[in-house]
Amino acid sequence: MSIDYKKELETAAKSMILVHEPDILIKIIARTIMQKAKVSHAGILLHEKDRDTYILTVSRGPLGLKIPKGFARMDADNPLIRFFRERKDKQIFGDGAIISEKAKRILRRRLPPALKKLLKGTLYQMEIFAAEVAIASYFRNDLLGILLLGRKTKGKKFSQDEIDFFVALASDVAMAIRNARLFKDLQLELEKEHRLFLNTTIALAAAIDAKDHYTHGHTARVTSLSLEIARTLSRKNNKKLNEKFLEYLHISSLLHDIGKIGIPEVILNKEGPLSPEERNKMEGHPALGANILKSIPELGEAILGVKYHHERYDGSGYPQGLKKDQIPLIASIISVADTFDAMTTDRPYRRALNKDGAIEEIKRSGGKQFDPKVVSALVKLYREGKI
Amino acid sequence: MSIDYKKELETAAKSMILVHEPDILIKIIARTIMQKAKVSHAGILLHEKDRDTYILTVSRGPLGLKIPKGFARMDADNPLIRFFRERKDKQIFGDGAIISEKAKRILRRRLPPALKKLLKGTLYQMEIFAAEVAIASYFRNDLLGILLLGRKTKGKKFSQDEIDFFVALASDVAMAIRNARLFKDLQLELEKEHRLFLNTTIALAAAIDAKDHYTHGHTARVTSLSLEIARTLSRKNNKKLNEKFLEYLHISSLLHDIGKIGIPEVILNKEGPLSPEERNKMEGHPALGANILKSIPELGEAILGVKYHHERYDGSGYPQGLKKDQIPLIASIISVADTFDAMTTDRPYRRALNKDGAIEEIKRSGGKQFDPKVVSALVKLYREGKI
Repeated sequence: MSIDYKKELETAAKSMILVHEPDILIKIIARTIMQKAKVSHAGILLHEKDRDTYILTVSRGPLGLKIPKGFARMDADNPLIRFFRERKDKQIFGDGAIISEKAKRILRRRLPPALKKLLKGTLYQMEIFAAEVAIASYFRNDLLGILLLGRKTKGKKFSQDEIDFFVALASDVAMAIRNARLFKDLQLELEKEHRLFLNTTIALAAAIDAKDHYTHGHTARVTSLSLEIARTLSRKNNKKLNEKFLEYLHISSLLHDIGKIGIPEVILNKEGPLSPEERNKMEGHPALGANILKSIPELGEAILGVKYHHERYDGSGYPQGLKKDQIPLIASIISVADTFDAMTTDRPYRRALNKDGAIEEIKRSGGKQFDPKVVSALVKLYREGKI
Repeated sequence: MSIDYKKELETAAKSMILVHEPDILIKIIARTIMQKAKVSHAGILLHEKDRDTYILTVSRGPLGLKIPKGFARMDADNPLIRFFRERKDKQIFGDGAIISEKAKRILRRRLPPALKKLLKGTLYQMEIFAAEVAIASYFRNDLLGILLLGRKTKGKKFSQDEIDFFVALASDVAMAIRNARLFKDLQLELEKEHRLFLNTTIALAAAIDAKDHYTHGHTARVTSLSLEIARTLSRKNNKKLNEKFLEYLHISSLLHDIGKIGIPEVILNKEGPLSPEERNKMEGHPALGANILKSIPELGEAILGVKYHHERYDGSGYPQGLKKDQIPLIASIISVADTFDAMTTDRPYRRALNKDGAIEEIKRSGGKQFDPKVVSALVKLYREGKI
């Protein structure tokens, strides 16, 4: 076989399968074809399903196409599109290709008038793009796209062998593009679903926040501070604090006070000190929160942060009186962030401290109430002016 | 070229790219190879990343392999695996293949002792699987899997041409399998994210339900009844009620009373009749709910169900007094389901009706309080014994 670039192009086409970003994939394809096959320029018209139209998605080459990319759009009634969709290519040129030179010769011969008119129109469309050859990409019977090729750079003509090869290549490319689009769609859906989950959780957490008159915006602040602390810990010691952990921490800090939904409003909003019985109810909120969420396995570690964010490093916290390393890191982080935010906002029983005072008090409680490594991450953040 | 099945197999390998279910893909591959290449049997060992082990995933053919599928597992120190991973195939057989007959001949020759031992071990492994040929699937430098082929059915030997072709095919297959696995992983992640969203919403809605002493389980019942009504409407008139609508309805009915989070508990749980001012607050819950959710574009139509589930067909509802077709279908459905559930459970001000009585009352209110087509779907469900 005389086509020396064939193997290279085939290999390139195969590895395209794992490029899951359609735009990048299409650019790679156009550039590869142009370079390897040594044509003056190459363009790809791609089908847009929603509007049943074909758009010039990419256009490569020193000569360039006559029409700027993005401007060219061909509807289903365009002769070039109709020619391929009605499979006139099979009838005249052999499967999947139109060769302009051959088309011109054929036009001089006797043809059925309708076909002659269609071929003329098709040729005119190819001239607009300065295309010598048009190659169709089919997936099953759908025309997914059209590859347009300019002149060969060394002035040679395209051989039938080359045309056949391009037709085979076009079907690989169609498959790769379709695969990439399916992948992309799935990825976008995943992102959408994730935003839906986070935003709904944020909205509900804010609504629950609003019930406690003194904690307006508390959840949002605790969440962002928790994440800042975790990132600081990550930089100092990247053990365990991977993306997954950060995601659980995000969810957990959003939901940390969810159990307050079960505390009567008269207790939540009481101005004076709580009676022992009231205090008892109030201190039930972490366990209550964990109980609300316990049937959701996908929340994983996030539930531990809800359940244990009122444990204390010295074992004097609730609900279980866990000590030191028994307390999950996720809970230790929320505990410090929660306390810092409580100290720096007004509460029924006292005025807010300034940040300096709050940091000092939390530092003094390191090793008693708080995990010292989390405290030192908070202090670092403060010194760096990040909080 | 003498291999008549080549083109068929190549085409099959290409279309594999769009099979995104790894298990199905692997079965198709094994069956296709067995049939087209006419070998007695074929098996595929696939890499399992977590445990760095290779498992006999599929085994096809009338003869079958000597070891049942799923039982065979080869760790990284297995001679066959080591042979390919250390790329001894390149050294002895040419890229990516081991041919048992050739291996036996080579063993009689002088070889470095370590290599001789490894090759012997490799051959023994192939005998266990009754494999004449082993073909490696690499992706970049990772050994993704091994294709094992039995004897050719017509007693012929494998030609070098055939081996070369199988090696090329194996790399296509590796790519297709990898693509399918990436796809599958993404799909599983999407499902997980969707469950996370639904379950968290369900848990929070139930917690809010629990605040209103009289509505235990209300949200869950309204949700399932709304979906039943929608499916019944779909059967009668499939306009508009697609999967997307059902999903929005699911979310919307879960969240329909979310605004109650902003209603004081003393009003929610009051035993006697509400004062005009209290009633006013209570009737603010649909608008409040919509307000909580308004910043979440992904909720789409679901917000309309929250906002308008207390509108009435004759325009006498709240918050906006919408009439007839002005009321979104999603809200009309929740309205009927909500009322039916309220009627059939005890409330502070009255005992529950039985289902019969509730259906009669709702029928009487069709065209006044309720959209008649939704009422008739409810009645249909009741007659069919589904509620």
